[in-house]
Amino acid sequence: MYDFTFYNPTRVIFGRGVFSQLADELARDGVSRVLLLYGGSSVFKTGVYDQITEALRSRGVAYCECPGVKANPVVSKAREAVDIIKSNGLEAVVAIGGGSVIDSAKGIAAAALYDGDIWDFYARKEKIERALPIYAAVTVSATASEANYTSVMTNEELGKKIGLHCELFFPRVAFIDPAAQFTVPERQTISGGIDAICHVLETYFDGAKGLEIQKEYAEGLVRTLIRLIPILRAHPDDYDARAQFAWAAVGALNGTTWAGHPGRGDFASHVMGHAFSAKYDSVHGDTLAVLMPAWMRYVHDRDIKTFARFAERVFGANAESEEERANAGINCLSEFFASLGAPVTLRDLGVPEADLPKLAESAAAGGPIGTLVKLDADAVLEIFKSAY
Amino acid sequence: MYDFTFYNPTRVIFGRGVFSQLADELARDGVSRVLLLYGGSSVFKTGVYDQITEALRSRGVAYCECPGVKANPVVSKAREAVDIIKSNGLEAVVAIGGGSVIDSAKGIAAAALYDGDIWDFYARKEKIERALPIYAAVTVSATASEANYTSVMTNEELGKKIGLHCELFFPRVAFIDPAAQFTVPERQTISGGIDAICHVLETYFDGAKGLEIQKEYAEGLVRTLIRLIPILRAHPDDYDARAQFAWAAVGALNGTTWAGHPGRGDFASHVMGHAFSAKYDSVHGDTLAVLMPAWMRYVHDRDIKTFARFAERVFGANAESEEERANAGINCLSEFFASLGAPVTLRDLGVPEADLPKLAESAAAGGPIGTLVKLDADAVLEIFKSAY
Repeated sequence: MYDFTFYNPTRVIFGRGVFSQLADELARDGVSRVLLLYGGSSVFKTGVYDQITEALRSRGVAYCECPGVKANPVVSKAREAVDIIKSNGLEAVVAIGGGSVIDSAKGIAAAALYDGDIWDFYARKEKIERALPIYAAVTVSATASEANYTSVMTNEELGKKIGLHCELFFPRVAFIDPAAQFTVPERQTISGGIDAICHVLETYFDGAKGLEIQKEYAEGLVRTLIRLIPILRAHPDDYDARAQFAWAAVGALNGTTWAGHPGRGDFASHVMGHAFSAKYDSVHGDTLAVLMPAWMRYVHDRDIKTFARFAERVFGANAESEEERANAGINCLSEFFASLGAPVTLRDLGVPEADLPKLAESAAAGGPIGTLVKLDADAVLEIFKSAY
Repeated sequence: MYDFTFYNPTRVIFGRGVFSQLADELARDGVSRVLLLYGGSSVFKTGVYDQITEALRSRGVAYCECPGVKANPVVSKAREAVDIIKSNGLEAVVAIGGGSVIDSAKGIAAAALYDGDIWDFYARKEKIERALPIYAAVTVSATASEANYTSVMTNEELGKKIGLHCELFFPRVAFIDPAAQFTVPERQTISGGIDAICHVLETYFDGAKGLEIQKEYAEGLVRTLIRLIPILRAHPDDYDARAQFAWAAVGALNGTTWAGHPGRGDFASHVMGHAFSAKYDSVHGDTLAVLMPAWMRYVHDRDIKTFARFAERVFGANAESEEERANAGINCLSEFFASLGAPVTLRDLGVPEADLPKLAESAAAGGPIGTLVKLDADAVLEIFKSAY
């Protein structure tokens, strides 16, 4: 097992009606002026906005608002939020939404206490020294951003989507009310589920050895998520299924699976997917549904035992040879994604074939990607072509 | 799923040679005077004492020492440590040891900032408002005390062993070096492994419904621990096995398994075992090896589905009826404990049969114990008799 540090100080308050506790937590921390950051109209329709703002008013917590954060959140919106914080002397960022809003809140919280531009952090020009506290009210479970230290931001001028880790990014408190997710659109539930499954698999398949308990966790998470997504499609208001899904999504990327793995896993599929999202605003889960199985096919012979084990433990594959079992597992995963109506090929994503070489260059622009196999732009292009 | 709060801010630094980082962490936190709390001579034999004290001296951190903490740690020793802290103006408690030392450090850290007697907290006469920071250097993995908020203390005058939870008890940093555990005596490895397995099962079998991902975690932990203990008996210096064991023991009681369970699980077996440890200083893992299977037999028909599932998932039981599978699972567990040389009956523990009624009264002195089934003193006695 590789040496590691495990640290995750986020307090998760989970259950029915927990958003009303947000104001209490702010008051307890002595916070009296906050930014409310959110996306579109769903926070109004679900009543989450009313729940939170009523509680804030009753506790005398003042707030300014910055709506309009979109999927694949962009740095221009984040700059707008930073300006609001600075000109109003706000003390904390309250993110109401899913991964895009919470990821944005993290960069914003750091930039609010910095004189330069927020992109400096993502471009690795500047190290984050301070950040405002972040409170996350989750309305869509998928990325676990509410309980981890990762922020992914898109610079739409540069056409780049970049991830950043920082301990100051851990939300101070995350509020998860599964009932608030009954109305999450089916496509978003599916995309979020695929995202969570891929988070687990990218750590699972990084080639690290001697990590039995981490593998057990990972297999349990994937089995659970695979079981839950169809239940949620049929019964979007099944409280227990929503709760299981929300908690499994947290477990998929809160650090539990990657303890003892070098570099937290092999996130080549995510990095490849980001190239498409940055250029075409592709749905994150859609890119993964196509690229994760394609990546698995490309690399599986480098750790055939783990790929065969995955097939056995998750899909009950029992073919005689490891190679057959490994392939069966990849096929089962790909077929499961397809059964959810997710895209199967890059063509389905609406990407012109002629763009693939440039996208491969973009994905590997910072050098070869991945851990199990180091993929340069040529290797990435080969994967893209196999997935077209 | 029940509503819950998950919170675990302990930073775990895991790997080879990590004890030398303890002084750096203290310096980073501005701590310059600490109490070193430890047990017997093993900290010298393993070199852990030297590693830590050399680093402290090189960093200019002053320390006083309180050796002699025993298994089933007693309040008189804790009082001695509190006196040393108060008379020397120490700022933190450094626990070097296993669960007994770390559990003691927690109560001591609170009592050091309190004018009354430490037992007031365990007797629920006083609430803990403040505590010194705790740093844990783990030399025996079992209880996960290094990464949770629980302290169990024995009052030898009153013949009581009582557990206490407090958020201020989370160690600030836990240092786990699997290599420092190569020389843990075989009996202690076994006892610790049984303790960790029972921690998982007491949450697993509390009757809570709709907790698929928690059940998956639990089954993975138990399978892993069952696989590891025999490996460690044969190869006590297998680094990967020690590392897996250490990390699984943390996972067994750091809160991961009990999220969404009411009251964190059904710890009736622990409470019953504490009655024996308080009176006869019985080894904690030995009491569990006897009482956990006896408790399972007594309650299994109240949640036959979960007992059958456990048998299938952990031991591959495939008998036709749920009742048969459930019984097979309990028998397999009991046989596994016996295969490790653990006691099988209360008679093996050396307990006089005539004492059982008093011990049952003592276990249920605070009212009926347990969640799946509420056990009064009569029910506890019935379990004791079945286990004699």
